Amino acid sequence: MNAAPETGYGQHVAIIGLGLIGGSIARGLRVAGGAASIVGCVATTEDAKRAVELGIVDEATTDLGKAVAGADLVVVAVPVGAMADVFADLARAMPAAAVITDVGSVKMAVITAAREQLGARIGRFVPGHPIAGTEHSGLEAGFGALYEDRRVILTPTPETDRDAFAAVEALWRALGARVTEMDAAHHDEVLAATSHLPHVLAFALVDTLARMAERTEIFEYAAGGFADFTRIASSDPALWSDIVSANRDAVLPVLDRYIGDLEALRGAIAGRDGAMLTSAFGRAKQARDRFASQYIQDQG
Amino acid sequence: MNAAPETGYGQHVAIIGLGLIGGSIARGLRVAGGAASIVGCVATTEDAKRAVELGIVDEATTDLGKAVAGADLVVVAVPVGAMADVFADLARAMPAAAVITDVGSVKMAVITAAREQLGARIGRFVPGHPIAGTEHSGLEAGFGALYEDRRVILTPTPETDRDAFAAVEALWRALGARVTEMDAAHHDEVLAATSHLPHVLAFALVDTLARMAERTEIFEYAAGGFADFTRIASSDPALWSDIVSANRDAVLPVLDRYIGDLEALRGAIAGRDGAMLTSAFGRAKQARDRFASQYIQDQG
Repeated sequence: MNAAPETGYGQHVAIIGLGLIGGSIARGLRVAGGAASIVGCVATTEDAKRAVELGIVDEATTDLGKAVAGADLVVVAVPVGAMADVFADLARAMPAAAVITDVGSVKMAVITAAREQLGARIGRFVPGHPIAGTEHSGLEAGFGALYEDRRVILTPTPETDRDAFAAVEALWRALGARVTEMDAAHHDEVLAATSHLPHVLAFALVDTLARMAERTEIFEYAAGGFADFTRIASSDPALWSDIVSANRDAVLPVLDRYIGDLEALRGAIAGRDGAMLTSAFGRAKQARDRFASQYIQDQG
Repeated sequence: MNAAPETGYGQHVAIIGLGLIGGSIARGLRVAGGAASIVGCVATTEDAKRAVELGIVDEATTDLGKAVAGADLVVVAVPVGAMADVFADLARAMPAAAVITDVGSVKMAVITAAREQLGARIGRFVPGHPIAGTEHSGLEAGFGALYEDRRVILTPTPETDRDAFAAVEALWRALGARVTEMDAAHHDEVLAATSHLPHVLAFALVDTLARMAERTEIFEYAAGGFADFTRIASSDPALWSDIVSANRDAVLPVLDRYIGDLEALRGAIAGRDGAMLTSAFGRAKQARDRFASQYIQDQG
Protein backbone atom coordinates (compact mmCIF):
# COMPACT_ATOMS: atom_id res chain seq x y z
CA MET A 1 0.00 0.00 0.00
CA ASN A 2 1.52 3.32 -1.07
CA ALA A 3 1.91 6.43 1.02
CA ALA A 4 -0.42 8.40 -1.20
CA PRO A 5 -0.35 12.19 -1.53
CA GLU A 6 -2.96 14.13 0.42
CA THR A 7 -5.96 14.27 -1.86
CA GLY A 8 -8.61 15.81 0.34
CA TYR A 9 -10.97 12.94 -0.25
CA GLY A 10 -9.27 10.26 1.86
CA GLN A 11 -6.83 7.44 1.27
CA HIS A 12 -9.29 4.59 0.93
CA VAL A 13 -12.16 4.83 -1.50
CA ALA A 14 -14.93 2.25 -1.88
CA ILE A 15 -17.17 2.37 -4.94
CA ILE A 16 -20.47 0.51 -4.84
CA GLY A 17 -21.31 -0.37 -8.44
CA LEU A 18 -18.77 -0.32 -11.29
CA GLY A 19 -21.01 0.48 -14.25
CA LEU A 20 -20.45 3.47 -16.55
CA ILE A 21 -20.56 6.02 -13.72
CA GLY A 22 -18.86 4.12 -10.89
CA GLY A 23 -16.37 2.46 -13.20
CA SER A 24 -15.35 5.81 -14.66
CA ILE A 25 -14.80 7.25 -11.18
CA ALA A 26 -12.55 4.29 -10.34
CA ARG A 27 -10.60 4.54 -13.59
CA GLY A 28 -10.24 8.30 -13.23
CA LEU A 29 -8.98 8.00 -9.66
CA ARG A 30 -6.38 5.43 -10.67
CA VAL A 31 -5.12 7.82 -13.35
CA ALA A 32 -5.12 10.72 -10.86
CA GLY A 33 -3.16 8.51 -8.48
CA GLY A 34 -4.30 10.09 -5.22
CA ALA A 35 -5.95 7.18 -3.43
CA ALA A 36 -3.98 4.45 -1.69
CA SER A 37 -6.69 1.90 -2.38
CA ILE A 38 -9.80 1.73 -4.52
CA VAL A 39 -12.16 -1.13 -3.74
CA GLY A 40 -15.20 -1.94 -5.84
CA CYS A 41 -18.38 -3.72 -4.82
CA VAL A 42 -20.23 -5.53 -7.62
CA ALA A 43 -23.12 -7.96 -7.99
CA THR A 44 -21.32 -11.16 -9.04
CA THR A 45 -17.98 -12.86 -8.38
CA GLU A 46 -17.50 -12.96 -12.13
CA ASP A 47 -17.78 -9.16 -12.34
CA ALA A 48 -15.42 -8.83 -9.36
CA LYS A 49 -12.79 -10.92 -11.15
CA ARG A 50 -13.27 -9.02 -14.38
CA ALA A 51 -13.08 -5.58 -12.69
CA VAL A 52 -9.64 -6.40 -11.30
CA GLU A 53 -8.51 -7.93 -14.61
CA LEU A 54 -9.58 -4.77 -16.43
CA GLY A 55 -7.60 -2.72 -13.92
CA ILE A 56 -10.66 -0.69 -12.90
CA VAL A 57 -10.01 -1.18 -9.15
CA ASP A 58 -7.34 -2.60 -6.83
CA GLU A 59 -9.79 -5.04 -5.29
CA ALA A 60 -13.37 -6.04 -5.99
CA THR A 61 -15.85 -8.01 -3.95
CA THR A 62 -19.53 -8.88 -3.81
CA ASP A 63 -19.48 -8.32 -0.04
CA LEU A 64 -20.47 -4.75 0.77
CA GLY A 65 -19.27 -4.99 4.37
CA LYS A 66 -15.83 -6.09 3.20
CA ALA A 67 -15.73 -3.38 0.51
CA VAL A 68 -16.33 -0.51 2.93
CA ALA A 69 -14.53 -1.91 6.01
CA GLY A 70 -11.57 0.50 5.86
CA ALA A 71 -13.09 3.22 3.70
CA ASP A 72 -12.65 6.96 4.18
CA LEU A 73 -15.05 7.66 1.31
CA VAL A 74 -17.87 5.52 -0.08
CA VAL A 75 -19.32 6.32 -3.52
CA VAL A 76 -22.74 4.77 -4.17
CA ALA A 77 -23.01 4.28 -7.94
CA VAL A 78 -26.02 1.99 -8.23
CA PRO A 79 -29.36 2.74 -9.92
CA VAL A 80 -31.55 5.20 -8.01
CA GLY A 81 -34.06 2.46 -7.19
CA ALA A 82 -31.41 0.33 -5.51
CA MET A 83 -29.97 3.06 -3.28
CA ALA A 84 -32.23 2.59 -0.25
CA ASP A 85 -31.05 -1.00 0.20
CA VAL A 86 -27.40 0.00 -0.19
CA PHE A 87 -27.82 2.83 2.35
CA ALA A 88 -29.35 0.37 4.82
CA ASP A 89 -26.36 -1.96 4.44
CA LEU A 90 -23.91 0.94 4.69
CA ALA A 91 -25.48 2.16 7.93
CA ARG A 92 -24.49 -1.18 9.45
CA ALA A 93 -21.10 -1.75 7.80
CA MET A 94 -19.45 1.63 7.24
CA PRO A 95 -16.82 3.17 9.59
CA ALA A 96 -18.50 5.98 11.57
CA ALA A 97 -16.31 8.75 10.16
CA ALA A 98 -16.52 7.66 6.52
CA VAL A 99 -18.00 10.10 4.05
CA ILE A 100 -20.71 8.81 1.73
CA THR A 101 -21.81 10.25 -1.59
CA ASP A 102 -23.98 9.08 -4.48
CA VAL A 103 -24.20 9.75 -8.21
CA GLY A 104 -27.96 9.46 -8.72
CA SER A 105 -29.70 11.45 -11.47
CA VAL A 106 -32.49 12.28 -9.00
CA LYS A 107 -31.72 13.94 -5.70
CA MET A 108 -34.94 14.41 -3.66
CA ALA A 109 -35.83 10.71 -3.73
CA VAL A 110 -32.26 9.70 -2.89
CA ILE A 111 -32.13 12.14 0.04
CA THR A 112 -35.41 10.75 1.37
CA ALA A 113 -33.99 7.23 1.18
CA ALA A 114 -30.74 8.34 2.84
CA ARG A 115 -32.63 10.02 5.72
CA GLU A 116 -34.65 6.86 6.28
CA GLN A 117 -31.73 4.45 6.09
CA LEU A 118 -28.59 6.25 7.26
CA GLY A 119 -30.06 7.53 10.52
CA ALA A 120 -27.43 9.34 12.60
CA ARG A 121 -24.92 9.10 9.75
CA ILE A 122 -26.93 11.51 7.57
CA GLY A 123 -24.41 14.28 8.31
CA ARG A 124 -21.73 12.26 6.48
CA PHE A 125 -23.88 12.03 3.33
CA VAL A 126 -23.24 14.41 0.40
CA PRO A 127 -25.78 13.92 -2.42
CA GLY A 128 -24.18 14.37 -5.84
CA HIS A 129 -24.83 14.05 -9.55
CA PRO A 130 -22.22 14.16 -12.32
CA ILE A 131 -23.72 15.61 -15.53
CA ALA A 132 -21.91 13.18 -17.76
CA GLY A 133 -22.55 9.85 -19.39
CA THR A 134 -22.97 7.99 -22.62
CA GLU A 135 -25.70 5.67 -23.86
CA HIS A 136 -23.52 2.69 -22.93
CA SER A 137 -23.66 0.83 -19.63
CA GLY A 138 -21.90 -1.96 -17.74
CA LEU A 139 -18.46 -2.87 -16.47
CA GLU A 140 -16.71 -2.20 -19.80
CA ALA A 141 -18.45 1.13 -20.50
CA GLY A 142 -16.46 3.37 -18.15
CA PHE A 143 -13.42 5.47 -18.97
CA GLY A 144 -11.22 7.67 -16.84
CA ALA A 145 -11.77 10.91 -18.74
CA LEU A 146 -15.59 10.83 -18.53
CA TYR A 147 -15.75 13.66 -15.98
CA GLU A 148 -13.07 15.93 -17.40
CA ASP A 149 -14.46 19.43 -17.64
CA ARG A 150 -17.98 18.12 -16.90
CA ARG A 151 -20.26 19.59 -14.30
CA VAL A 152 -21.02 17.81 -11.05
CA ILE A 153 -23.92 19.11 -8.99
CA LEU A 154 -23.76 18.58 -5.23
CA THR A 155 -27.00 19.09 -3.30
CA PRO A 156 -26.04 19.05 0.41
CA THR A 157 -28.83 18.73 2.98
CA PRO A 158 -29.07 20.98 6.05
CA GLU A 159 -27.51 18.09 7.97
CA THR A 160 -24.48 17.63 5.67
CA ASP A 161 -21.14 18.15 7.50
CA ARG A 162 -18.92 20.73 5.81
CA ASP A 163 -15.84 18.47 5.94
CA ALA A 164 -17.83 15.72 4.21
CA PHE A 165 -18.86 18.20 1.52
CA ALA A 166 -15.23 19.27 1.08
CA ALA A 167 -14.09 15.66 0.68
CA VAL A 168 -16.61 14.96 -2.07
CA GLU A 169 -15.78 18.24 -3.78
CA ALA A 170 -12.10 17.21 -3.73
CA LEU A 171 -12.98 13.83 -5.24
CA TRP A 172 -14.66 15.41 -8.24
CA ARG A 173 -11.96 18.05 -8.67
CA ALA A 174 -9.40 15.22 -8.80
CA LEU A 175 -11.40 13.78 -11.71
CA GLY A 176 -11.29 17.09 -13.57
CA ALA A 177 -14.94 17.99 -13.00
CA ARG A 178 -16.41 21.43 -12.24
CA VAL A 179 -18.41 21.32 -9.01
CA THR A 180 -21.62 23.33 -8.50
CA GLU A 181 -23.81 23.45 -5.41
CA MET A 182 -27.58 23.47 -5.87
CA ASP A 183 -30.82 22.94 -3.98
CA ALA A 184 -31.97 19.32 -4.46
CA ALA A 185 -35.52 20.20 -5.55
CA HIS A 186 -34.19 22.69 -8.07
CA HIS A 187 -31.70 20.11 -9.38
CA ASP A 188 -34.56 17.70 -9.97
CA GLU A 189 -36.54 20.30 -11.95
CA VAL A 190 -33.58 21.28 -14.13
CA LEU A 191 -32.63 17.67 -14.85
CA ALA A 192 -36.24 16.70 -15.55
CA ALA A 193 -36.19 19.27 -18.34
CA THR A 194 -32.77 18.65 -19.89
CA SER A 195 -32.27 14.95 -19.33
CA HIS A 196 -35.22 12.93 -18.05
CA LEU A 197 -37.79 14.37 -20.47
CA PRO A 198 -35.51 13.99 -23.54
CA HIS A 199 -34.90 10.35 -22.61
CA VAL A 200 -38.65 9.71 -22.34
CA LEU A 201 -39.23 11.40 -25.71
CA ALA A 202 -36.48 9.46 -27.46
CA PHE A 203 -37.54 6.10 -26.01
CA ALA A 204 -41.15 6.91 -26.94
CA LEU A 205 -40.28 7.78 -30.55
CA VAL A 206 -38.25 4.66 -31.23
CA ASP A 207 -40.91 2.50 -29.56
CA THR A 208 -43.67 4.15 -31.61
CA LEU A 209 -41.78 3.52 -34.85
CA ALA A 210 -40.69 0.02 -33.85
CA ARG A 211 -44.33 -0.96 -33.37
CA MET A 212 -45.36 0.24 -36.84
CA ALA A 213 -45.88 -2.39 -39.53
CA GLU A 214 -43.13 -1.06 -41.81
CA ARG A 215 -40.57 -0.90 -38.99
CA THR A 216 -37.66 -2.46 -40.86
CA GLU A 217 -38.04 -0.20 -43.86
CA ILE A 218 -38.56 2.86 -41.68
CA PHE A 219 -35.23 2.43 -39.93
CA GLU A 220 -33.53 1.60 -43.22
CA TYR A 221 -34.22 5.08 -44.55
CA ALA A 222 -33.30 6.95 -41.39
CA ALA A 223 -30.31 9.27 -41.62
CA GLY A 224 -27.77 10.93 -39.37
CA GLY A 225 -30.27 13.30 -37.78
CA PHE A 226 -32.33 10.34 -36.62
CA ALA A 227 -29.24 8.56 -35.30
CA ASP A 228 -28.33 11.58 -33.15
CA PHE A 229 -31.91 12.20 -32.05
CA THR A 230 -32.38 8.63 -30.87
CA ARG A 231 -28.92 7.95 -29.40
CA ILE A 232 -30.21 8.28 -25.82
CA ALA A 233 -32.86 5.63 -26.59
CA SER A 234 -29.99 3.12 -26.43
CA SER A 235 -29.62 3.89 -22.71
CA ASP A 236 -30.36 1.30 -20.03
CA PRO A 237 -34.17 0.80 -19.81
CA ALA A 238 -34.40 -0.29 -16.14
CA LEU A 239 -32.14 2.54 -15.03
CA TRP A 240 -34.25 5.14 -16.82
CA SER A 241 -37.53 3.64 -15.69
CA ASP A 242 -36.15 4.07 -12.17
CA ILE A 243 -35.05 7.66 -12.77
CA VAL A 244 -38.30 8.97 -14.23
CA SER A 245 -40.34 7.17 -11.58
CA ALA A 246 -38.15 8.57 -8.79
CA ASN A 247 -38.37 12.07 -10.27
CA ARG A 248 -42.06 11.81 -11.14
CA ASP A 249 -43.06 15.06 -9.45
CA ALA A 250 -40.60 17.10 -11.51
CA VAL A 251 -40.96 15.13 -14.77
CA LEU A 252 -44.76 15.28 -15.03
CA PRO A 253 -45.14 19.10 -15.13
CA VAL A 254 -42.54 19.55 -17.88
CA LEU A 255 -43.89 16.53 -19.78
CA ASP A 256 -47.39 18.03 -19.61
CA ARG A 257 -46.09 21.36 -20.81
CA TYR A 258 -44.36 19.60 -23.70
CA ILE A 259 -47.45 17.60 -24.70
CA GLY A 260 -49.44 20.85 -24.65
CA ASP A 261 -46.90 22.58 -26.89
CA LEU A 262 -46.82 19.58 -29.20
CA GLU A 263 -50.60 19.65 -29.52
CA ALA A 264 -50.45 23.34 -30.43
CA LEU A 265 -47.90 22.50 -33.14
CA ARG A 266 -50.16 19.68 -34.30
CA GLY A 267 -52.94 22.22 -34.75
CA ALA A 268 -50.63 24.46 -36.75
CA ILE A 269 -49.59 21.58 -39.02
CA ALA A 270 -53.22 20.51 -39.51
CA GLY A 271 -54.14 24.11 -40.36
CA ARG A 272 -51.01 24.60 -42.49
CA ASP A 273 -50.23 27.61 -40.28
CA GLY A 274 -46.75 28.20 -41.67
CA ALA A 275 -46.29 31.43 -39.73
CA MET A 276 -46.90 29.73 -36.38
CA LEU A 277 -44.61 26.81 -37.28
CA THR A 278 -41.81 29.05 -38.55
CA SER A 279 -42.07 31.17 -35.42
CA ALA A 280 -41.91 28.20 -33.01
CA PHE A 281 -39.15 26.46 -34.98
CA GLY A 282 -37.27 29.76 -35.21
CA ARG A 283 -37.37 30.33 -31.43
CA ALA A 284 -36.09 26.78 -31.00
CA LYS A 285 -33.26 27.21 -33.50
CA GLN A 286 -32.18 30.44 -31.87
CA ALA A 287 -32.10 28.85 -28.40
CA ARG A 288 -30.36 25.72 -29.66
CA ASP A 289 -27.73 27.66 -31.61
CA ARG A 290 -27.00 29.75 -28.51
CA PHE A 291 -26.76 26.59 -26.41
CA ALA A 292 -24.42 25.01 -28.96
CA SER A 293 -22.11 28.02 -29.09
CA GLN A 294 -21.96 28.34 -25.30
CA TYR A 295 -21.93 24.80 -24.00
CA ILE A 296 -20.82 22.33 -26.63
CA GLN A 297 -17.09 22.00 -26.94
CA ASP A 298 -17.05 19.01 -29.27
CA GLN A 299 -18.62 18.56 -32.70
CA GLY A 300 -21.06 21.24 -33.92
CA MET B 1 -15.29 24.09 -72.19
CA ASN B 2 -13.82 20.61 -71.83
CA ALA B 3 -14.70 17.53 -73.83
CA ALA B 4 -16.04 15.76 -70.77
CA PRO B 5 -16.27 11.98 -70.40
CA GLU B 6 -19.69 10.41 -70.92
CA THR B 7 -21.40 10.59 -67.57
CA GLY B 8 -24.88 9.39 -68.35
CA TYR B 9 -26.42 12.51 -66.89
CA GLY B 10 -25.50 15.00 -69.59
CA GLN B 11 -22.73 17.50 -70.20
CA HIS B 12 -24.43 20.61 -68.92
CA VAL B 13 -25.95 20.67 -65.46
CA ALA B 14 -27.94 23.56 -64.00
CA ILE B 15 -28.61 23.65 -60.27
CA ILE B 16 -31.38 25.90 -58.97
CA GLY B 17 -30.44 26.79 -55.41
CA LEU B 18 -26.94 26.37 -53.93
CA GLY B 19 -27.73 25.77 -50.27
CA LEU B 20 -26.58 22.70 -48.35
CA ILE B 21 -28.22 20.24 -50.76
CA GLY B 22 -27.72 21.98 -54.12
CA GLY B 23 -24.28 23.29 -53.19
CA SER B 24 -23.15 19.80 -52.20
CA ILE B 25 -24.35 18.38 -55.53
CA ALA B 26 -22.36 21.06 -57.37
CA ARG B 27 -19.22 20.51 -55.30
CA GLY B 28 -19.51 16.73 -55.65
CA LEU B 29 -19.93 16.97 -59.44
CA ARG B 30 -16.87 19.16 -59.73
CA VAL B 31 -14.86 16.59 -57.81
CA ALA B 32 -16.27 13.77 -59.94
CA GLY B 33 -15.33 15.78 -63.01
CA GLY B 34 -17.96 14.41 -65.38
CA ALA B 35 -19.87 17.54 -66.37
CA ALA B 36 -18.55 20.05 -68.91
CA SER B 37 -20.36 22.89 -67.16
CA ILE B 38 -22.17 23.41 -63.88
CA VAL B 39 -24.26 26.54 -63.66
CA GLY B 40 -25.94 27.67 -60.45
CA CYS B 41 -29.02 29.86 -60.04
CA VAL B 42 -29.23 31.81 -56.78
CA ALA B 43 -31.36 34.56 -55.26
CA THR B 44 -28.92 37.49 -55.20
CA THR B 45 -26.03 38.78 -57.32
CA GLU B 46 -23.93 38.73 -54.14
CA ASP B 47 -24.55 34.99 -53.72
CA ALA B 48 -23.79 34.45 -57.42
CA LYS B 49 -20.43 36.16 -57.05
CA ARG B 50 -19.66 34.27 -53.85
CA ALA B 51 -20.64 30.88 -55.35
CA VAL B 52 -18.09 31.30 -58.14
CA GLU B 53 -15.45 32.61 -55.70
CA LEU B 54 -15.98 29.55 -53.48
CA GLY B 55 -15.55 27.34 -56.54
CA ILE B 56 -18.96 25.72 -56.06
CA VAL B 57 -19.97 26.22 -59.72
CA ASP B 58 -18.45 27.34 -63.02
CA GLU B 59 -21.01 30.10 -63.42
CA ALA B 60 -23.75 31.52 -61.26
CA THR B 61 -26.63 33.82 -62.07
CA THR B 62 -29.88 35.13 -60.63
CA ASP B 63 -31.56 34.64 -64.03
CA LEU B 64 -33.23 31.24 -64.20
CA GLY B 65 -33.68 31.40 -67.96
CA LYS B 66 -29.99 32.05 -68.44
CA ALA B 67 -29.04 29.31 -66.00
CA VAL B 68 -30.99 26.58 -67.80
CA ALA B 69 -30.57 27.79 -71.40
CA GLY B 70 -28.15 25.06 -72.51
CA ALA B 71 -28.87 22.50 -69.80
CA ASP B 72 -29.14 18.75 -70.30
CA LEU B 73 -30.10 18.28 -66.66
CA VAL B 74 -31.75 20.72 -64.23
CA VAL B 75 -31.63 20.03 -60.47
CA VAL B 76 -34.20 21.97 -58.44
CA ALA B 77 -32.73 22.40 -54.95
CA VAL B 78 -35.01 25.04 -53.45
CA PRO B 79 -37.34 24.66 -50.43
CA VAL B 80 -40.41 22.54 -51.12
CA GLY B 81 -42.69 25.57 -50.85
CA ALA B 82 -40.81 27.41 -53.59
CA MET B 83 -40.83 24.57 -56.12
CA ALA B 84 -44.11 25.37 -57.89
CA ASP B 85 -42.83 28.80 -58.93
CA VAL B 86 -39.52 27.35 -60.15
CA PHE B 87 -41.35 24.66 -62.13
CA ALA B 88 -43.51 27.34 -63.78
CA ASP B 89 -40.40 29.28 -64.84
CA LEU B 90 -38.68 26.11 -66.02
CA ALA B 91 -41.64 25.15 -68.22
CA ARG B 92 -41.02 28.37 -70.14
CA ALA B 93 -37.22 28.48 -70.14
CA MET B 94 -35.92 24.92 -70.25
CA PRO B 95 -34.78 23.12 -73.45
CA ALA B 96 -37.48 20.59 -74.41
CA ALA B 97 -35.23 17.55 -74.01
CA ALA B 98 -33.70 18.56 -70.68
CA VAL B 99 -34.23 16.27 -67.73
CA ILE B 100 -35.45 17.85 -64.51
CA THR B 101 -35.15 16.48 -60.99
CA ASP B 102 -35.67 17.83 -57.49
CA VAL B 103 -34.32 17.11 -54.00
CA GLY B 104 -37.42 17.85 -51.92
CA SER B 105 -37.98 16.04 -48.62
CA VAL B 106 -41.66 15.61 -49.58
CA LYS B 107 -42.62 13.93 -52.84
CA MET B 108 -46.43 13.92 -53.24
CA ALA B 109 -46.75 17.70 -52.91
CA VAL B 110 -43.82 18.27 -55.28
CA ILE B 111 -45.27 15.90 -57.87
CA THR B 112 -48.63 17.71 -57.68
CA ALA B 113 -46.87 21.03 -58.25
CA ALA B 114 -44.84 19.56 -61.11
CA ARG B 115 -47.97 18.18 -62.84
CA GLU B 116 -49.63 21.58 -62.56
CA GLN B 117 -46.66 23.62 -63.74
CA LEU B 118 -44.59 21.47 -66.10
CA GLY B 119 -47.49 20.45 -68.36
CA ALA B 120 -46.28 18.38 -71.32
CA ARG B 121 -42.77 18.24 -69.86
CA ILE B 122 -43.89 16.05 -66.95
CA GLY B 123 -42.29 13.02 -68.63
CA ARG B 124 -38.86 14.65 -68.21
CA PHE B 125 -39.37 15.06 -64.45
CA VAL B 126 -37.79 12.58 -62.02
CA PRO B 127 -38.76 13.29 -58.40
CA GLY B 128 -35.89 12.59 -56.00
CA HIS B 129 -34.81 12.91 -52.40
CA PRO B 130 -31.28 12.40 -51.03
CA ILE B 131 -31.39 11.07 -47.45
CA ALA B 132 -28.51 13.21 -46.32
CA GLY B 133 -27.98 16.54 -44.67
CA THR B 134 -26.70 18.37 -41.64
CA GLU B 135 -28.32 20.96 -39.41
CA HIS B 136 -26.44 23.68 -41.29
CA SER B 137 -27.78 25.62 -44.26
CA GLY B 138 -26.72 28.22 -46.80
CA LEU B 139 -24.10 28.73 -49.49
CA GLU B 140 -21.16 27.79 -47.25
CA ALA B 141 -22.78 24.68 -45.74
CA GLY B 142 -22.31 22.27 -48.65
CA PHE B 143 -19.49 19.79 -49.18
CA GLY B 144 -18.73 17.40 -51.99
CA ALA B 145 -18.78 14.20 -49.93
CA LEU B 146 -22.28 14.75 -48.47
CA TYR B 147 -23.85 12.03 -50.59
CA GLU B 148 -21.12 9.41 -50.43
CA ASP B 149 -22.68 6.09 -49.49
CA ARG B 150 -25.97 7.85 -48.64
CA ARG B 151 -29.32 6.72 -49.94
CA VAL B 152 -31.20 8.67 -52.59
CA ILE B 153 -34.85 7.78 -53.13
CA LEU B 154 -36.29 8.36 -56.61
CA THR B 155 -40.09 8.30 -56.88
CA PRO B 156 -40.84 8.31 -60.64
CA THR B 157 -44.41 9.03 -61.73
CA PRO B 158 -46.25 6.89 -64.32
CA GLU B 159 -45.36 9.61 -66.85
CA THR B 160 -41.60 9.64 -66.12
CA ASP B 161 -39.49 8.75 -69.20
CA ARG B 162 -37.08 5.89 -68.56
CA ASP B 163 -34.13 7.76 -70.12
CA ALA B 164 -34.79 10.69 -67.77
CA PHE B 165 -34.83 8.30 -64.81
CA ALA B 166 -31.54 6.77 -65.99
CA ALA B 167 -29.91 10.21 -66.24
CA VAL B 168 -30.88 11.16 -62.68
CA GLU B 169 -29.78 7.76 -61.41
CA ALA B 170 -26.39 8.34 -63.11
CA LEU B 171 -26.10 11.78 -61.47
CA TRP B 172 -26.47 10.34 -57.98
CA ARG B 173 -24.20 7.37 -58.69
CA ALA B 174 -21.52 9.87 -59.79
CA LEU B 175 -21.85 11.47 -56.34
CA GLY B 176 -21.35 8.12 -54.61
CA ALA B 177 -24.96 7.68 -53.50
CA ARG B 178 -27.01 4.48 -53.42
CA VAL B 179 -30.20 4.91 -55.44
CA THR B 180 -33.52 3.31 -54.44
CA GLU B 181 -36.84 3.54 -56.25
CA MET B 182 -40.00 3.98 -54.19
CA ASP B 183 -43.64 4.95 -54.50
CA ALA B 184 -44.04 8.66 -53.68
CA ALA B 185 -46.83 8.21 -51.11
CA HIS B 186 -44.84 5.52 -49.35
CA HIS B 187 -41.74 7.74 -49.36
CA ASP B 188 -43.74 10.47 -47.64
CA GLU B 189 -44.94 8.08 -44.92
CA VAL B 190 -41.47 6.69 -44.23
CA LEU B 191 -39.87 10.14 -44.11
CA ALA B 192 -42.68 11.52 -41.94
CA ALA B 193 -41.72 8.89 -39.36
CA THR B 194 -37.92 9.06 -39.50
CA SER B 195 -37.26 12.68 -40.33
CA HIS B 196 -40.22 15.07 -40.25
CA LEU B 197 -41.63 13.90 -36.89
CA PRO B 198 -38.21 13.91 -35.14
CA HIS B 199 -37.63 17.47 -36.35
CA VAL B 200 -41.01 18.59 -34.98
CA LEU B 201 -40.26 16.87 -31.64
CA ALA B 202 -36.80 18.42 -31.33
CA PHE B 203 -37.98 21.93 -32.26
CA ALA B 204 -40.89 21.53 -29.81
CA LEU B 205 -38.64 20.47 -26.93
CA VAL B 206 -36.15 23.30 -27.29
CA ASP B 207 -38.99 25.81 -27.69
CA THR B 208 -40.76 24.44 -24.59
CA LEU B 209 -37.59 24.75 -22.52
CA ALA B 210 -36.62 28.12 -23.99
CA ARG B 211 -39.95 29.54 -22.85
CA MET B 212 -39.50 28.37 -19.26
CA ALA B 213 -38.47 30.94 -16.67
CA GLU B 214 -35.19 29.22 -15.80
CA ARG B 215 -34.16 28.89 -19.44
CA THR B 216 -30.55 30.01 -19.07
CA GLU B 217 -29.86 27.73 -16.15
CA ILE B 218 -31.66 24.82 -17.80
CA PHE B 219 -29.40 24.88 -20.84
CA GLU B 220 -26.34 25.40 -18.66
CA TYR B 221 -26.80 21.98 -17.06
CA ALA B 222 -27.59 20.11 -20.25
CA ALA B 223 -25.10 17.45 -21.29
CA GLY B 224 -24.01 15.56 -24.39
CA GLY B 225 -27.23 13.57 -24.68
CA PHE B 226 -29.20 16.79 -24.89
CA ALA B 227 -26.82 18.22 -27.48
CA ASP B 228 -27.31 15.17 -29.72
CA PHE B 229 -31.05 15.03 -29.12
CA THR B 230 -31.56 18.66 -30.09
CA ARG B 231 -29.03 18.94 -32.93
CA ILE B 232 -31.80 18.87 -35.58
CA ALA B 233 -33.49 21.80 -33.81
CA SER B 234 -30.71 23.95 -35.28
CA SER B 235 -32.09 23.25 -38.76
CA ASP B 236 -33.62 25.98 -40.92
CA PRO B 237 -37.05 26.96 -39.47
CA ALA B 238 -38.72 28.14 -42.70
CA LEU B 239 -37.53 25.09 -44.62
CA TRP B 240 -38.94 22.73 -42.00
CA SER B 241 -42.18 24.63 -41.63
CA ASP B 242 -42.55 24.13 -45.38
CA ILE B 243 -41.74 20.42 -45.22
CA VAL B 244 -44.14 19.49 -42.43
CA SER B 245 -46.91 21.58 -43.99
CA ALA B 246 -46.35 20.01 -47.41
CA ASN B 247 -46.33 16.51 -45.89
CA ARG B 248 -49.19 17.21 -43.48
CA ASP B 249 -51.22 14.14 -44.48
CA ALA B 250 -48.37 11.76 -43.65
CA VAL B 251 -47.04 13.67 -40.61
CA LEU B 252 -50.33 13.98 -38.72
CA PRO B 253 -51.08 10.24 -38.35
CA VAL B 254 -47.62 9.41 -37.02
CA LEU B 255 -47.62 12.52 -34.79
CA ASP B 256 -51.00 11.45 -33.37
CA ARG B 257 -49.72 7.95 -32.77
CA TYR B 258 -46.70 9.42 -30.98
CA ILE B 259 -48.78 11.75 -28.79
CA GLY B 260 -50.97 8.76 -27.88
CA ASP B 261 -47.94 6.67 -26.93
CA LEU B 262 -46.49 9.57 -24.96
CA GLU B 263 -49.73 9.95 -23.02
CA ALA B 264 -49.64 6.24 -22.17
CA LEU B 265 -46.08 6.69 -20.86
CA ARG B 266 -47.25 9.73 -18.90
CA GLY B 267 -49.84 7.53 -17.23
CA ALA B 268 -47.17 4.98 -16.37
CA ILE B 269 -44.90 7.65 -14.87
CA ALA B 270 -47.79 9.12 -12.86
CA GLY B 271 -48.68 5.64 -11.61
CA ARG B 272 -45.01 4.72 -11.05
CA ASP B 273 -45.65 1.69 -13.28
CA GLY B 274 -42.01 0.64 -13.55
CA ALA B 275 -42.84 -2.56 -15.41
CA MET B 276 -44.64 -0.70 -18.20
CA LEU B 277 -41.86 1.90 -18.46
CA THR B 278 -39.09 -0.70 -18.49
CA SER B 279 -40.93 -2.67 -21.12
CA ALA B 280 -41.48 0.32 -23.44
CA PHE B 281 -37.95 1.67 -22.92
CA GLY B 282 -36.58 -1.84 -23.46
CA ARG B 283 -38.39 -2.29 -26.78
CA ALA B 284 -37.00 1.09 -27.84
CA LYS B 285 -33.44 0.26 -26.81
CA GLN B 286 -33.59 -3.04 -28.66
CA ALA B 287 -34.83 -1.38 -31.86
CA ARG B 288 -32.36 1.50 -31.57
CA ASP B 289 -29.39 -0.81 -30.91
CA ARG B 290 -30.35 -2.89 -33.96
CA PHE B 291 -30.67 0.27 -36.04
CA ALA B 292 -27.27 1.48 -34.82
CA SER B 293 -25.52 -1.79 -35.62
CA GLN B 294 -27.08 -2.03 -39.09
CA TYR B 295 -27.20 1.51 -40.38
CA ILE B 296 -24.79 3.76 -38.58
CA GLN B 297 -21.30 3.66 -40.02
CA ASP B 298 -19.89 6.60 -38.09
CA GLN B 299 -19.73 7.17 -34.33
CA GLY B 300 -21.59 4.74 -32.06
